[in-house]
Amino acid sequence: MTDKRNISPLYTDMYQLTMGQAYFLNDRHHMPASFDYFFRKNPFQGGYVVFAGLGDLLQMIGELRFNDADIDYLHSKGFDSDYLEYLKRFQFKGDILGMQEGEIVFPLEPILRVDGGLLDVQLVETLLLNMLNFQSLVATKANRIRQSAGNKTLSDFGLRRAQGMGGIQASRAAIIGGFDTTSNVFAAMQNGIPPAGTMAHSFIESFDDELTAFEAYAYTFPDNCVLLVDTYNTMKSGLPNAIKVAKKLNAKGKRLKGIRLDSGDLAYLSKKARQMLDDEGLQYVKIVVSNQLDEHVVKSLLDQGAPIDIFGVGTSMITGRPDGAIDGVYKLSTADGKPRLKISENLQKTTLPGKKKVLRFLDGKKQFYADCIALEAEQEPKLMIHPFHKEKSLSLEDYHFENLFREHMKHGKMLAQSKGPFELREIMYNRLQQLPDEHKRFDYPHIYKVGISNQLLQLRDKMVKNLQVFI
Amino acid sequence: MTDKRNISPLYTDMYQLTMGQAYFLNDRHHMPASFDYFFRKNPFQGGYVVFAGLGDLLQMIGELRFNDADIDYLHSKGFDSDYLEYLKRFQFKGDILGMQEGEIVFPLEPILRVDGGLLDVQLVETLLLNMLNFQSLVATKANRIRQSAGNKTLSDFGLRRAQGMGGIQASRAAIIGGFDTTSNVFAAMQNGIPPAGTMAHSFIESFDDELTAFEAYAYTFPDNCVLLVDTYNTMKSGLPNAIKVAKKLNAKGKRLKGIRLDSGDLAYLSKKARQMLDDEGLQYVKIVVSNQLDEHVVKSLLDQGAPIDIFGVGTSMITGRPDGAIDGVYKLSTADGKPRLKISENLQKTTLPGKKKVLRFLDGKKQFYADCIALEAEQEPKLMIHPFHKEKSLSLEDYHFENLFREHMKHGKMLAQSKGPFELREIMYNRLQQLPDEHKRFDYPHIYKVGISNQLLQLRDKMVKNLQVFI
Repeated sequence: MTDKRNISPLYTDMYQLTMGQAYFLNDRHHMPASFDYFFRKNPFQGGYVVFAGLGDLLQMIGELRFNDADIDYLHSKGFDSDYLEYLKRFQFKGDILGMQEGEIVFPLEPILRVDGGLLDVQLVETLLLNMLNFQSLVATKANRIRQSAGNKTLSDFGLRRAQGMGGIQASRAAIIGGFDTTSNVFAAMQNGIPPAGTMAHSFIESFDDELTAFEAYAYTFPDNCVLLVDTYNTMKSGLPNAIKVAKKLNAKGKRLKGIRLDSGDLAYLSKKARQMLDDEGLQYVKIVVSNQLDEHVVKSLLDQGAPIDIFGVGTSMITGRPDGAIDGVYKLSTADGKPRLKISENLQKTTLPGKKKVLRFLDGKKQFYADCIALEAEQEPKLMIHPFHKEKSLSLEDYHFENLFREHMKHGKMLAQSKGPFELREIMYNRLQQLPDEHKRFDYPHIYKVGISNQLLQLRDKMVKNLQVFI
Repeated sequence: MTDKRNISPLYTDMYQLTMGQAYFLNDRHHMPASFDYFFRKNPFQGGYVVFAGLGDLLQMIGELRFNDADIDYLHSKGFDSDYLEYLKRFQFKGDILGMQEGEIVFPLEPILRVDGGLLDVQLVETLLLNMLNFQSLVATKANRIRQSAGNKTLSDFGLRRAQGMGGIQASRAAIIGGFDTTSNVFAAMQNGIPPAGTMAHSFIESFDDELTAFEAYAYTFPDNCVLLVDTYNTMKSGLPNAIKVAKKLNAKGKRLKGIRLDSGDLAYLSKKARQMLDDEGLQYVKIVVSNQLDEHVVKSLLDQGAPIDIFGVGTSMITGRPDGAIDGVYKLSTADGKPRLKISENLQKTTLPGKKKVLRFLDGKKQFYADCIALEAEQEPKLMIHPFHKEKSLSLEDYHFENLFREHMKHGKMLAQSKGPFELREIMYNRLQQLPDEHKRFDYPHIYKVGISNQLLQLRDKMVKNLQVFI
């Protein structure tokens, strides 16, 4: 990361570059082709995914250029000179279309489609997967925590446990998924997110006593002071000292913003703390908690009536624990004007051929009913078919639909400015309201129906049959 | 990431910057202080951690500078002008000492110690945790896969599932942990790692038939061609076509390098493939496998006698699944010349005060016996004590020791060039040979003994007692 580009096009898998050379030398690099981005399984045994990462991806693809160092390196690895001359002038010139960022999406359906010359669409694969798989993972995890947290404030405290520079994008994705603030100042600056923070144990320990430490911090930030109360003993030292400081601030016309609990039984301690604060007339002092939180702990705390105002969530959100990745893939669907597919003994891994779109069917209350994957040129299907069990079908007669596919990039140019994370969060909230509750359940969520049109089924079956005959 | 620095100092938690202001305005920013970096629990229920990330960290800390955009942003957030003037000229001037990168390390022991002015040592916390927690996680996961793989070749195929830009560092850490090559071209270039790759299904599908696709690739890369054989049907199409191509290459004096299996039962298919290849005199053609591998799958395949030469490992290695993070922390141990600690009701979370070092005791065969955490000025302890159960002690009389702490950075300057990942891998291999096998077991590994010296125990107990009286 030593130049002005956001990322080098070498941030890719080696085979993209070798396949590119084989396309180039066989004069296939301009052959029109389409790829679909989709995933096969919801993470966290959940019922949906929040699609995130598109804004960053489009910008990176738009700026993708090989510089001299990149070319020199590839030369040293034995790549063909004519091919490298071509790469020197490479800019992505393809089209990208598909779902909006912040959309609620489901397994198997194409989320994005990339159309363009074979070399262009192949060269962006790894970056696309890297950005979308990760940000969608984090946005989805953040969203689960939001489901648990109701309208409480959620702050991303994850940077110290983020996977290296992955923290740059993760905090943005956390907001898209439903968080409010971040401790990550760089991400805050880049994305217009309010930076948030309290104080560390080390601050308190660096003074000879806790009260002096609290006062030093409070007088430095009288309008924005959250005191960490568990360095020595929450009930006997931290809280009594915080109350003293709150009263001193009060005497200066200022209000202590909050106290933070970072250890012990957070349900018990938050109730005790609330009572002690309220007994002193400090109803306005907020209670912040942190320490190994996730969607299950947050839910449990609120179910127990813990009077917590702000949750600081780190490791499990920022790394999308325990899944750590969404299994998103990027599969060829057309080349040279013909539909293409990969066969698998497992029909679930046989890909869907042809240029496609996704139509979402809604009921009279605008609730999501089912998504149908159809061929691009198709009219509204009246029926959709289970992708793996063709005896199962679903009538779509009584539902109206939305085409979820829109153009994001045309001939390598972004068609709109990237939206900020809060705008995307708003899109997410609006869409999530349209998702029936049974799909939001943590335990065994109801599976949202994604099917294929009859035309697409016919095409796939015909191609599978032909290829099997051919084999 | 839009300037020449590797990373902005704003890639940190907000509270580091607010605490910094409180230190600065209270004239405590130059107060001498020390922090320890350590973790509490081995990831993956394993018996050890491979320490990685130090080289990148030292370089980033050495280059840490606030630029105008950073300062302007902090100004907009209400930071104090004098403090910002100070930050404009900030360079880290502290000392960093501790274990060498590639070392085998254990819970509770300080791995690094950062000494310096309070502001300096506080400001590097988040970056230090981010880099070391992540790279050590990945190196440790990679090492577990290496334990399973014996002397087979391991290739990092993880970039598409890496956590965003985390992929920049992850591939380096994979090598330190025991991998051989990477598909990540950027990481390969930055770290001198051999880039590796085969071909994708899309390449094959983009041609009208598999054989033509194989030939196009093989003639482009006659010396380095691995054919992916599962696009349509491994046994009936992929392998027969690969054998045809191998023979054609042979006729030109070239050798097909390998075939890759990416689906199906890899044990069954690799045996069948080996037989088919051998029957045709193609003993030299290597078998590469990929598809959701981890240390357990690799072990199972080899236990079944699968004749696999190269494993391409992605998601679970590159994200350190399922843990996703090491719980490394950075805790104040001295300030203003005095030892400091954080008390917890749980003694395991009470920190160890004072400037410390770690001594590793070895038996007559140079096998690791136990690690003792001691105060910096101590002579060789003859005895070490369990950190949480003081009735348990261990005699060290018959063992010689190594001081694991060495200086890495002095007054903000790196004392040696960072080592490359293969040199670090060599250090790891040498050290791992000294670790008794029972600590390497996947299931319920024997716990390696880490204790504290009697002097350190006395200091901690006295401080805890004083603080409890104080409370």
